[in-house]
Amino acid sequence: MKSSYNIVLASKSPRRSSLLTQMGFSFENRTKDVEESYPAALPADKVALYISEKKAAAFKSELKENELIITADTVVVYDNQVLGKPVDDQEAFTFIKSMSHNSHDVYTGVTILTKDKKISFSDRSIVHFSEITDEEIHFYIREYNPSDKAGAYGIQEWIGHNFIHKIEGSYTNIMGLPTEKLYRTLKSLEKI
Amino acid sequence: MKSSYNIVLASKSPRRSSLLTQMGFSFENRTKDVEESYPAALPADKVALYISEKKAAAFKSELKENELIITADTVVVYDNQVLGKPVDDQEAFTFIKSMSHNSHDVYTGVTILTKDKKISFSDRSIVHFSEITDEEIHFYIREYNPSDKAGAYGIQEWIGHNFIHKIEGSYTNIMGLPTEKLYRTLKSLEKI
Repeated sequence: MKSSYNIVLASKSPRRSSLLTQMGFSFENRTKDVEESYPAALPADKVALYISEKKAAAFKSELKENELIITADTVVVYDNQVLGKPVDDQEAFTFIKSMSHNSHDVYTGVTILTKDKKISFSDRSIVHFSEITDEEIHFYIREYNPSDKAGAYGIQEWIGHNFIHKIEGSYTNIMGLPTEKLYRTLKSLEKI
Repeated sequence: MKSSYNIVLASKSPRRSSLLTQMGFSFENRTKDVEESYPAALPADKVALYISEKKAAAFKSELKENELIITADTVVVYDNQVLGKPVDDQEAFTFIKSMSHNSHDVYTGVTILTKDKKISFSDRSIVHFSEITDEEIHFYIREYNPSDKAGAYGIQEWIGHNFIHKIEGSYTNIMGLPTEKLYRTLKSLEKI
């Protein structure tokens, strides 16, 4: 599908760029540093949506006619707690250890902004990990350095292939972009 | 994990080779042409397992000491019918049209064979497609030529990104190799 908008993806994530390309869209990347904080009282399942809206708001004043900006944020939620990017290897270990032999949720919030429209949505996927030994967790952290990843893991890496036995929901949502929902939304905008 | 076996992947699928590499294993590829037929009375959910065993049997007499061969077969099952590789574009269209706005199952059967052991298993994933228009199906067949794919689609392509809103089970199983089950099985063989 060709879009009648000039699409701008406001994300530094190479995974998101790759997914949007595979969806068949042409776009440019434009990024801003936005502080990824959120109110302490915000429920964990609303955090990704809130941050995607915050990221979009930073572009509001400079959007040109016919531009459409896409922002996204992904968080891992375990036991009602948001697991963001780990601050160090010790925290990465703690995150992964808690998810081993257990399930957790992944939320990606997406905001689409044009000069006169704003659409936000989020998607939830459930991820089931089998048991991971301490040695395997240490190996993963050492070899794959997951410090830039929410919850300290990438589903498309060694740990995802070898230990995730089941997901419920969208796979690409776990990678960082709920592509089916995004496609449907972009398509609906073309019809207006 | 390093394996004490010399692993041989008996598959022409670049997706399976890529997944086994991402799992962290070294291996060589060796393939044989095996007729992928099965008894007409075989239940649809047993077909992938049956064909993976047939593919493995073709290597039985030539396995060397310390070699471990992996064979796999993937089928799409819709309404108790096995959808194999489509014979032409018309059949590809029929397959995809029937799966649109519907769910279907994907089974991958895997057989692991050494000189003195044989282990077989299969994995099932459920795939939920949203509605795909006739125009979108024609676009996909024209641009992506899915004639070499069971059920006439690849989950990691344009059609998978834009129309699969949910899966239940292993994602890599749908791509052609249930990596978590395979890892667990290869690990168990090391402990014997």
